[in-house]
Amino acid sequence: MRLYELAGRDDLRFSPHCWRARLALAHKGLEAETVPVRFTDKQVIAHSGQGMLPVLEDGERVIADSWAIAGYLEDAYADRPSLFGSAEGHGLARFVNTWSAATLQPAIIRCIIKDIYDHVDPADQAYFRETREARFGKSLDEIQAGRAQHAEALTAALLPLRATLKAQPWLSGPAPLYPDYIVFGAFQWARCVSDFAIIGGEEDPLREWRDRVAALFDGIGDRVACYGA
Amino acid sequence: MRLYELAGRDDLRFSPHCWRARLALAHKGLEAETVPVRFTDKQVIAHSGQGMLPVLEDGERVIADSWAIAGYLEDAYADRPSLFGSAEGHGLARFVNTWSAATLQPAIIRCIIKDIYDHVDPADQAYFRETREARFGKSLDEIQAGRAQHAEALTAALLPLRATLKAQPWLSGPAPLYPDYIVFGAFQWARCVSDFAIIGGEEDPLREWRDRVAALFDGIGDRVACYGA
Repeated sequence: MRLYELAGRDDLRFSPHCWRARLALAHKGLEAETVPVRFTDKQVIAHSGQGMLPVLEDGERVIADSWAIAGYLEDAYADRPSLFGSAEGHGLARFVNTWSAATLQPAIIRCIIKDIYDHVDPADQAYFRETREARFGKSLDEIQAGRAQHAEALTAALLPLRATLKAQPWLSGPAPLYPDYIVFGAFQWARCVSDFAIIGGEEDPLREWRDRVAALFDGIGDRVACYGA
Repeated sequence: MRLYELAGRDDLRFSPHCWRARLALAHKGLEAETVPVRFTDKQVIAHSGQGMLPVLEDGERVIADSWAIAGYLEDAYADRPSLFGSAEGHGLARFVNTWSAATLQPAIIRCIIKDIYDHVDPADQAYFRETREARFGKSLDEIQAGRAQHAEALTAALLPLRATLKAQPWLSGPAPLYPDYIVFGAFQWARCVSDFAIIGGEEDPLREWRDRVAALFDGIGDRVACYGA
């Protein structure tokens, strides 16, 4: 198996979507060689028929998109520990996935976009700046300069997650499942590139949970360069 | 069994939390006598040790709070159809419940708060106005006057729900479970008191889903006076 992952400066793997695929493989007890891919060097994954990462190769099969990869692994390795637990676990995981994409990640990126730029491979920086400044209609510096206000919006967006993790150990309930990995991916993205604290200190159930996810699978989330935030 | 529900003008039952309890009972195939309670007439539920609705009485047991009622029914009537399906279904339902409380309902109420006032029992209107205007720091009319802008914020908050229901029939996946009832409660609340369209027309997967939830259990959501919106 081969997992193509977005790679930044000094081969830093910070993509939230790639972290999800990595955790999904670990949950299934599967090993994959990881292949670094830069934003502007995507001919490497041309055989996937699209240009986004991660891409998983499993023998002849080529699967793009972290959600599709999780679904593929669940079906193809049904004898291994389940990523979703049940049909309703799979259905509700989709809601968590779309919440992360539509609410959580947009709130996070506004706090750390210049920090992401600083960690993108130098050969990708012009591409990253141009596409992101076009998307937001502002310079990266201007967006990040508003981070105090963006952090307030993020805190509001995090209310349901924080309330859930105050009441139960994992987002998925009594044990970690793919929904935990979805949301962890977004926090790991921030933690890989930025020292800006988007969550609270040791008393914050969100931090306590994030650190517990990072510690899974022999410290999968801690074996990379990360800021302490 | 007896379910104490918030009642408005002409005995209208519009509370999102009470709708959840009603659907949870129906899902379990249980019947309960419903008892109308006004905002300012809560001595009726003093025996529950608190002042919020719904309250469920089951013999000697008195349970307040829609989330606690769902958990109680799940345990006490374990031989009946499950509301959560599994441990992860229960865990992820809590996230949906906190998302509805912290994100969805605050976005909805800003669009319909004056319409709620108009449907509150006349004896409760002064209480409703005073407590809500203190909470928002604005008059009810002022809040609702900004509804075009509030509706945009609501549309943003609804992105994950809409994306999920575009991809699968129920929020919980292949069949309706308590998470569907949680979110339905919030939409039914709006539909009971307001003709302001917070969702789209027939082409909107959200409307199509809402109408399918309303049609469950012999049209449980359609057997009340509702606006078409």
